Amino acid sequence: MMKAGLPEDASKRLLNVRGHAAPSPIGGQIYDLAGKLFPICRSITGEGVRETLRMLRGVHDGVKIHEVPTGTAVFDWVVPKEWIVRDAFIECPDGSRIAEFEKNNLHLMGYSAPVDSTMTLDELQKHLYSLPEQPALIPYVTSYYEERFGFCISHEERTALRNGRYRVFVDSELKEGSLSYGEIIIPGEEKEEIFFSSNICHPSMANNELSGPCTAVYLAKWVSERPRRYTYRIIFIPETIGSITYLSRNLDEMKRSVIAGFILTCLGAPGNFTHIASRYGNTLADRAAKTVLRGFDSGHKSCSFLARGSDERQYCSPGVDLPVCCITRAKFGSFPEYHTSADNMGFVTREALQKSYEFFVGLTEALEVNRKYRVQCKCEPQLSSRSFYPMVSNKKSGQSAPGVRAMMNFLAYCDGRNDLFDIAKIIGHPALDLIPIARKLTEAGLIDGP
Amino acid sequence: MMKAGLPEDASKRLLNVRGHAAPSPIGGQIYDLAGKLFPICRSITGEGVRETLRMLRGVHDGVKIHEVPTGTAVFDWVVPKEWIVRDAFIECPDGSRIAEFEKNNLHLMGYSAPVDSTMTLDELQKHLYSLPEQPALIPYVTSYYEERFGFCISHEERTALRNGRYRVFVDSELKEGSLSYGEIIIPGEEKEEIFFSSNICHPSMANNELSGPCTAVYLAKWVSERPRRYTYRIIFIPETIGSITYLSRNLDEMKRSVIAGFILTCLGAPGNFTHIASRYGNTLADRAAKTVLRGFDSGHKSCSFLARGSDERQYCSPGVDLPVCCITRAKFGSFPEYHTSADNMGFVTREALQKSYEFFVGLTEALEVNRKYRVQCKCEPQLSSRSFYPMVSNKKSGQSAPGVRAMMNFLAYCDGRNDLFDIAKIIGHPALDLIPIARKLTEAGLIDGP
Amino acid sequence: MMKAGLPEDASKRLLNVRGHAAPSPIGGQIYDLAGKLFPICRSITGEGVRETLRMLRGVHDGVKIHEVPTGTAVFDWVVPKEWIVRDAFIECPDGSRIAEFEKNNLHLMGYSAPVDSTMTLDELQKHLYSLPEQPALIPYVTSYYEERFGFCISHEERTALRNGRYRVFVDSELKEGSLSYGEIIIPGEEKEEIFFSSNICHPSMANNELSGPCTAVYLAKWVSERPRRYTYRIIFIPETIGSITYLSRNLDEMKRSVIAGFILTCLGAPGNFTHIASRYGNTLADRAAKTVLRGFDSGHKSCSFLARGSDERQYCSPGVDLPVCCITRAKFGSFPEYHTSADNMGFVTREALQKSYEFFVGLTEALEVNRKYRVQCKCEPQLSSRSFYPMVSNKKSGQSAPGVRAMMNFLAYCDGRNDLFDIAKIIGHPALDLIPIARKLTEAGLIDGP
Repeated sequence: MMKAGLPEDASKRLLNVRGHAAPSPIGGQIYDLAGKLFPICRSITGEGVRETLRMLRGVHDGVKIHEVPTGTAVFDWVVPKEWIVRDAFIECPDGSRIAEFEKNNLHLMGYSAPVDSTMTLDELQKHLYSLPEQPALIPYVTSYYEERFGFCISHEERTALRNGRYRVFVDSELKEGSLSYGEIIIPGEEKEEIFFSSNICHPSMANNELSGPCTAVYLAKWVSERPRRYTYRIIFIPETIGSITYLSRNLDEMKRSVIAGFILTCLGAPGNFTHIASRYGNTLADRAAKTVLRGFDSGHKSCSFLARGSDERQYCSPGVDLPVCCITRAKFGSFPEYHTSADNMGFVTREALQKSYEFFVGLTEALEVNRKYRVQCKCEPQLSSRSFYPMVSNKKSGQSAPGVRAMMNFLAYCDGRNDLFDIAKIIGHPALDLIPIARKLTEAGLIDGP
Repeated sequence: MMKAGLPEDASKRLLNVRGHAAPSPIGGQIYDLAGKLFPICRSITGEGVRETLRMLRGVHDGVKIHEVPTGTAVFDWVVPKEWIVRDAFIECPDGSRIAEFEKNNLHLMGYSAPVDSTMTLDELQKHLYSLPEQPALIPYVTSYYEERFGFCISHEERTALRNGRYRVFVDSELKEGSLSYGEIIIPGEEKEEIFFSSNICHPSMANNELSGPCTAVYLAKWVSERPRRYTYRIIFIPETIGSITYLSRNLDEMKRSVIAGFILTCLGAPGNFTHIASRYGNTLADRAAKTVLRGFDSGHKSCSFLARGSDERQYCSPGVDLPVCCITRAKFGSFPEYHTSADNMGFVTREALQKSYEFFVGLTEALEVNRKYRVQCKCEPQLSSRSFYPMVSNKKSGQSAPGVRAMMNFLAYCDGRNDLFDIAKIIGHPALDLIPIARKLTEAGLIDGP
Repeated sequence: MMKAGLPEDASKRLLNVRGHAAPSPIGGQIYDLAGKLFPICRSITGEGVRETLRMLRGVHDGVKIHEVPTGTAVFDWVVPKEWIVRDAFIECPDGSRIAEFEKNNLHLMGYSAPVDSTMTLDELQKHLYSLPEQPALIPYVTSYYEERFGFCISHEERTALRNGRYRVFVDSELKEGSLSYGEIIIPGEEKEEIFFSSNICHPSMANNELSGPCTAVYLAKWVSERPRRYTYRIIFIPETIGSITYLSRNLDEMKRSVIAGFILTCLGAPGNFTHIASRYGNTLADRAAKTVLRGFDSGHKSCSFLARGSDERQYCSPGVDLPVCCITRAKFGSFPEYHTSADNMGFVTREALQKSYEFFVGLTEALEVNRKYRVQCKCEPQLSSRSFYPMVSNKKSGQSAPGVRAMMNFLAYCDGRNDLFDIAKIIGHPALDLIPIARKLTEAGLIDGP
């Protein structure tokens, strides 16, 4: 019955590298892709999003780009105008330029309206954003839902400004257009779906958020290249308005088919993994994430839905109720580089991206193997006759073979009531380590799924 | 749909004073009422109870006085004879008098039978009660169910007694009469009832128990003066035999209508609040009490039914099963003044009574507002367009506005599954703080009850 | 309705001795029986098992001996050949003999095949078993499912061996025969059964395992001599293959009738009791064991099914699902004498056996008394009129009478929802102490079972 999943060797490799800084061929590719996407100015709409989606299609040709027109009602919201930006800067009294968009797109507040005027420093201050506690960094600021303009500069630069007249120049447009998003559907043997969601709305920031879509697209590639039981839906959307828009078009179908979904965000910087639970924390996605993290990252944390902050806000909202949780390394908002110019390509590493990628590969593998197993005989099976158990029994039988104990414990709960993740939780064993055990026992005919 | 409850200003005031020693107009009135009731000699029956009920009627003219004849069978019990007492004292060998009832009604053991005889000190000792560990205090002792007589004196006084013949004099009667109790019914829009129960059977003791009925009658006054959704039942009864008698006459109706009930006792002395749970601790009353106490009194305690001691013993007994819990400050039995002459008007304070009163007002308000709310749209509503959310989004959005976070969390669990108290528990927020949030969101049409 | 169980006096005695080293008439008898059984060479089959069963029949003549032929399929297993052993030893190069079976039957690996040959020390080493960390002890080793031979000696003796040719001699047979087990059925008023299981497959070891069957057979004697509500099934089987064989013949009937079962093992050495839970830890057996241990042994431990190791492995396996848990003192595998020659008659004590016996007597008694009680009146019953409650009520009523408090708490949860063990857990009271309370209240007509 085990039709899909990692070939035995790949699985072994996967299991072997866990917990170690491993050679990282895929981590390196993810890093390089993020580096190419980094300079593009993305926002919740606009050409930067489209260009990003086209580059993701370079990794997986199944990326389909969808456009939703400005003004479309999406639940309680409306698709906003499309933002086009060509240039922006502040000209100082001495003629020098600061906050130049072409040098760093974070300098321009997201969704800034066009302007070309001069003003005093006092007036300018109302349009400036900086971080007094991180004076060397440029903050990331947006104003999607009120038309205004603004510039983001380092606090050091701001405090050095002298009185005089400043020219503020933003060559932008807010026009009827569309919101763009990308979607990969990879059909499997079953209509039931595994869902991965990532964001493509931040300008030049590497961990939050390029690490997410870049990991997701390589994960899509891995899934596509293997036999599979489930259908996969992988999307690349602007945060909040993007997930709301996507749900307004796909919710009915997703409610029928999605059995587990995951948000991929902040996956590129070293640090322990964090699971942010769905609204009640009891979905297949939550159970899988928590028991796969066990053993994979001994320092991982699990937070309740109260710690939410990404698109789980929408996927898990009342009436939507999709079985989705969020996976990050250091959680958004909790690392000092968050939403600043310090979240750059030097902050993320190939090794961290590799490990994040491996986590999602393992998670996917575990979901593919997952079943409510049932032992095929009454009482314990005769394991020693199958060479699964030591022949000579002494004082330390069992203790000396932790794999045997795990197998016995796994078998003890293969009673048709529990799936792989339930058993992992009950017996306190990493879910990934149960995959080869489940395979071995299935091959021996000792357990069978429904 | 929010028809009832505190006017906005009153609610604000209430919320503002939480946690502070506030000006206490009602606390002072409660204190003064208790002071007037203090000298009366109450017991489980008799004229003192009636006089007390008539004085409570001076605050709320809805107090109806009921009489249940001696000998009436009430479940496993029988209404006892009525106790009448006019005078009592011990005359010492030297002719001086001690244990004079007219000086302190605690001197006479409750329900003492009449006697006029002389005896040796040794014989007298069998009828004396004192507290060796609190030698200056007079204990409170009763013997309801065996006819005898006794005197309560300070241990200091007792140890000073010299041999000789003593005259014991009790001018009392135990006669066919009735058990008296008071009841206020305040009709609301709905037949469902909120129930408050307090005791009026203790002689001169202030915290346990005048604080209870005096707070309850002012609470009744507050309820009467406002529009309300629920019907209110507020009773003033002798402990144990009173609640058993009351239940024997009202249980069927109460099982149909009471949705939450509370016992008010020991509310006049400073100290943290204590919630004593119903039999399984999971009723609406328990959930409301616990989540309203959260934030209202950061040092409050919650005890299981094993710590019970007041009329929850009857209301929560098997087969009765009313959703009732008990609210006290320092719990009966746990403060040294308990059941002694030190539980006097100097032990209770206006401020403590004010705070207890405010708790019950807030609790009532929360129950009136309580519903299983349901968000009216899918995904998060667009809060910023309604000025509920900051327009400019930066690194600290949300963090800077704890009210916004509470509102978002409240909304996230308005899924039709949880009422206000469930949500308060899930999101770890004081229930009282959710009242204005629930109002604001209801007014904006974002949530609606069933 | 309390037809069965300990006579009042016996119960009192039982309750009085709890926690104390008591005079131990039964403990002494159990000890003496174990001493007589100790020298016999038992294994999972063979004459030693039959001889053991016949001696158990000397205590309780209801022991029926069953034989199951070699080769019989029992679930995933097959009944093995019968092992017959007459003699075994190693002859050293100097002609002296070591590892003599007739001196200690542990010297011969269980199920050793016959051999008579000479070999070098290097060759011999492959057939030797010793314990480097416990160099003075002989280990207990078996090889049931692969035909080989082996000798167990102390590590001290092993390291003293010199080069030369050794003769190894095992006069044994592995032949078509049968597996033997013993069974006592004691009919009660009801078909529902209490089940006790113990093992008789270890050679000369006292705690693990003679303490088990010797306690079990005296427990059977106690049960037989008293009126009883339930039917009792007490079995004496080889571990693992024995329980599998027994289940293959009796499972359907046991699934219909067994309401609680217990494995008795490692009961002879001093030390705290250990409860090893059934697969989900929520059966009547688990609830009874845990609440009876409470108060009986304040230092007892309760382990999950993950700590299993005896026949609960079979009784609680998926599809078998009997309500069985395991009771030991120090758990198998956790004491240094385990599976060595140090587990001898000096390791077990009369006092420990007495206490273990008392535990099972108390447990049985509690199961006999157990019901879902229901109070027969609404509100608290009038206990003082029944002399169950102090007449004079003062500051310390209730506190001064812990028995009264326990009775009130017991009554409070006699609501038809909870049995004796549920109530013991809820009110945090030892189950054994509730037996006289349940009797008293039943006799007074205040509670009744279904």
